[in-house]
Amino acid sequence: MSTPSTTPAYDALAAHHGRLHRLDHLAAVAHWDQAANMPPKAAEARGAALAEMAALLHRLRTDPALAEQLRRAGDEPLDDAQRANLREMQRAYRLATALPESLVQRAQLAASRSEHAWRTQRAANDWAGFLPNLREMVAIAREEAAHLADRSGLARYDALMDRFEPGMTSTEIDRVFGDLRRWLPSLVQRVLDRQSREPLHTPAGPFPVDAQRRLCERTMRLLGFDFGAGRLDVSAHPFCGGVPEDVRMTTRFAEHDFLGSLLGTIHETGHGRYEQNLPRDWLGQPLAQARSMAIHESQSLAFEMQLGAHPGFVRQLAPLLAEAFGDQAAFEPGNLQRLMTRVKPGLIRVDADEVTYPAHVIVRYEIERALIEGEIEADDIPALWDAKMMELLGVDTRGNYRDGPMQDVHWPEGLFGYFPCYTLGAMYAAQWFAAMRRVLPALDARIAEGDLRPVFDWLHENVWSQGSRWPTDELARRASGEPLNPAHFRAHLEARYLG
Amino acid sequence: MSTPSTTPAYDALAAHHGRLHRLDHLAAVAHWDQAANMPPKAAEARGAALAEMAALLHRLRTDPALAEQLRRAGDEPLDDAQRANLREMQRAYRLATALPESLVQRAQLAASRSEHAWRTQRAANDWAGFLPNLREMVAIAREEAAHLADRSGLARYDALMDRFEPGMTSTEIDRVFGDLRRWLPSLVQRVLDRQSREPLHTPAGPFPVDAQRRLCERTMRLLGFDFGAGRLDVSAHPFCGGVPEDVRMTTRFAEHDFLGSLLGTIHETGHGRYEQNLPRDWLGQPLAQARSMAIHESQSLAFEMQLGAHPGFVRQLAPLLAEAFGDQAAFEPGNLQRLMTRVKPGLIRVDADEVTYPAHVIVRYEIERALIEGEIEADDIPALWDAKMMELLGVDTRGNYRDGPMQDVHWPEGLFGYFPCYTLGAMYAAQWFAAMRRVLPALDARIAEGDLRPVFDWLHENVWSQGSRWPTDELARRASGEPLNPAHFRAHLEARYLG
Repeated sequence: MSTPSTTPAYDALAAHHGRLHRLDHLAAVAHWDQAANMPPKAAEARGAALAEMAALLHRLRTDPALAEQLRRAGDEPLDDAQRANLREMQRAYRLATALPESLVQRAQLAASRSEHAWRTQRAANDWAGFLPNLREMVAIAREEAAHLADRSGLARYDALMDRFEPGMTSTEIDRVFGDLRRWLPSLVQRVLDRQSREPLHTPAGPFPVDAQRRLCERTMRLLGFDFGAGRLDVSAHPFCGGVPEDVRMTTRFAEHDFLGSLLGTIHETGHGRYEQNLPRDWLGQPLAQARSMAIHESQSLAFEMQLGAHPGFVRQLAPLLAEAFGDQAAFEPGNLQRLMTRVKPGLIRVDADEVTYPAHVIVRYEIERALIEGEIEADDIPALWDAKMMELLGVDTRGNYRDGPMQDVHWPEGLFGYFPCYTLGAMYAAQWFAAMRRVLPALDARIAEGDLRPVFDWLHENVWSQGSRWPTDELARRASGEPLNPAHFRAHLEARYLG
Repeated sequence: MSTPSTTPAYDALAAHHGRLHRLDHLAAVAHWDQAANMPPKAAEARGAALAEMAALLHRLRTDPALAEQLRRAGDEPLDDAQRANLREMQRAYRLATALPESLVQRAQLAASRSEHAWRTQRAANDWAGFLPNLREMVAIAREEAAHLADRSGLARYDALMDRFEPGMTSTEIDRVFGDLRRWLPSLVQRVLDRQSREPLHTPAGPFPVDAQRRLCERTMRLLGFDFGAGRLDVSAHPFCGGVPEDVRMTTRFAEHDFLGSLLGTIHETGHGRYEQNLPRDWLGQPLAQARSMAIHESQSLAFEMQLGAHPGFVRQLAPLLAEAFGDQAAFEPGNLQRLMTRVKPGLIRVDADEVTYPAHVIVRYEIERALIEGEIEADDIPALWDAKMMELLGVDTRGNYRDGPMQDVHWPEGLFGYFPCYTLGAMYAAQWFAAMRRVLPALDARIAEGDLRPVFDWLHENVWSQGSRWPTDELARRASGEPLNPAHFRAHLEARYLG
């Protein structure tokens, strides 16, 4: 006879989350397939199948029986890890049940309609056509924020942000971004002055797609990606999907440019290794999930920016490029390094270098926070956009909605509160490397020798293997001795671009 | 105000089947992905995810509320198509509920264990190791047969066969295969005599995989496959999966042989076009499903055998081969035709030509029917196998279990009752072409001119678009004026191989 469990409610919850994980697996594969493989005429059937699964998962996640189980599990003799897992279960239940079913459905329909229309409206620079949809998305997001704020006691914008970055507040963002705002424009100017005097060879194409694919796969291997538990494929919009046991990365190739797919692949490899190395013993449980979106971005940016553009790493990349595309002066390590760290204020966030990128995020954050808090309306966006882009980056965006406030898919989809994660991720990435250098002063020499293990070991021990064991602040403190500290990001930019 | 439905029970059932169809979609994509893409370390997680979905679907299919809805729907004012749909719903419910849950689980576990062990046992020619597992699979199949027979009133083997080929009985199979048994061995002998005097050029390889892939895709286009609603990929064991809206065919390539992948692709294209052309207005309902496995095989064999080895079609294929692999005497249409219709009694069913193939099926049918009816035991199989293979094909199989009774995955997986469908399919395919020739005497001339439309139009009108509208006999009668008539198959073989 087996002993009865002393934690029956917790066990039931764990079984429930295991089931969600297994069903999520099928949805993840179908989502990846939709982007990477699906023939066009299957779109309607796939959409219906995914919607059916989303409804099923929502019913499971909001099962009223969970409330009582969560309450009882809190009184059971759990160990620390189980207690952390329970904390994340509670959070998942709170988020799943915070919004009325009717609002969830209305938001989904509106987002899908708005996103679909936006594709053509953006191409046509049709702000007037887009505006009614955007107004509706803002109205819905405000409703969602009100519900989430009621439940959590947070400010409205903070309640939206909390879905992606638990515990982060706009007070904290204001502190961090406010600092950034003060020194970034002059830093950009100094970098531009300096780079304008540097010689630069541009690589000569075309760069055959097969050679690019092999180069990306070699680079992923160099970066430790496990092809036994993941793949690289092609999709129109690169992403890192799948499940921790089967990570599906995508990229896209253009014959005239190899740097886009290479840097994108390095970026997604950071996401991919995080997923592949989440704590295996806890797989399927909330504890085994990535901590937050800022921490996720801190991994992709640790790979793309901290490591990918590191002169030591670039020296290893250079011969691979020559092998893939033939010898060129552009592939000489010094030139390649200048190429990969070229700063140029521009209109488009996703094309931005690491120095100007935060400016794009600040513009969006300031606008969307004010929108959600009801301080401005959708109609006010273009004027604010123009002013802020001129102030922070010195670029003129007037009349160009397409490459202005219509460029990102976030707002047409109602995804307010996500943008700050990108820059928080860049800051955490710099903080992680600063912490590594404190532990291992020879870090840069080791990277230059082609030994990336110290980087991976540190990330594995301090971030990947921790999953959602700790709140983000605590994770950062344990990993680096302090909570988020943007000084490391500034120091990184100054060292790399002005040092 | 909307009028209340006069068919509320039927409507609820239709909604239920729509839901099953959407969830099946996700399972189908994940199954295909497992075979075509999945990295090895994901196997366990994928298996668990698919098992979770299988359990969920089983619960939905056996929902006790369905019994009452099915009963009430029978009294509702349905039109003929709805009534046919209800008939198929009843059949699906009967099959899903016929077996006790515990037996379903025991069968799944045993099948998975037995199939896994079989892979190495087969390679090692280890009959003694395989035998205990086979005994268990037979015992389980007998239990399943007893339950299914109880429910349906059929004989036990017939009850198993009914899962794949509704309405088919062993009395009918005995009649059809008994006839075949009498004339096949002497026909094989006459064909061998005749072919031994024919000159034959063998194609010289290697045949680059990229060229083979392009050739297969061109051939699929020639055969009308819609790449807007399907794909061709690579897997270890070729199959046609996915869903009607998104057909996923697979093949495998070997550098030294192009004919295997080409013929396999033509075969799967037959399955694929059937799926792609099932009645769209009914998609998701049982009525829109393929009629049966014999009818499904009749489509793949109509493509591979009737059309694929048709001298008129071979003449169109010949220049594509020369384009893919360079000019060779082997690709001259007459030689290619001889190559594609070469008869050679052998050990392996899946490698067999269309003349000797039925002998392989007869051997399996006679053995598995006697096994299920309790007339023989698993231990008796090798002696029976040796005797029947010598009698029907003149080949010596003694001591070679690997290429004998251990060669197919069906028995290790407990799949008894399927084998007859292959030869029934070949017979139906011959019957369809005989019917086409009655309607259109110029059919062969049209094919020789490269116009395949009459073939596709006939299959579309008489088979594809009919889905499961009619019981198989009625489908055959409407399509060809008579139920299954094996005389057409004999006439086809005699005309092609002795004419």
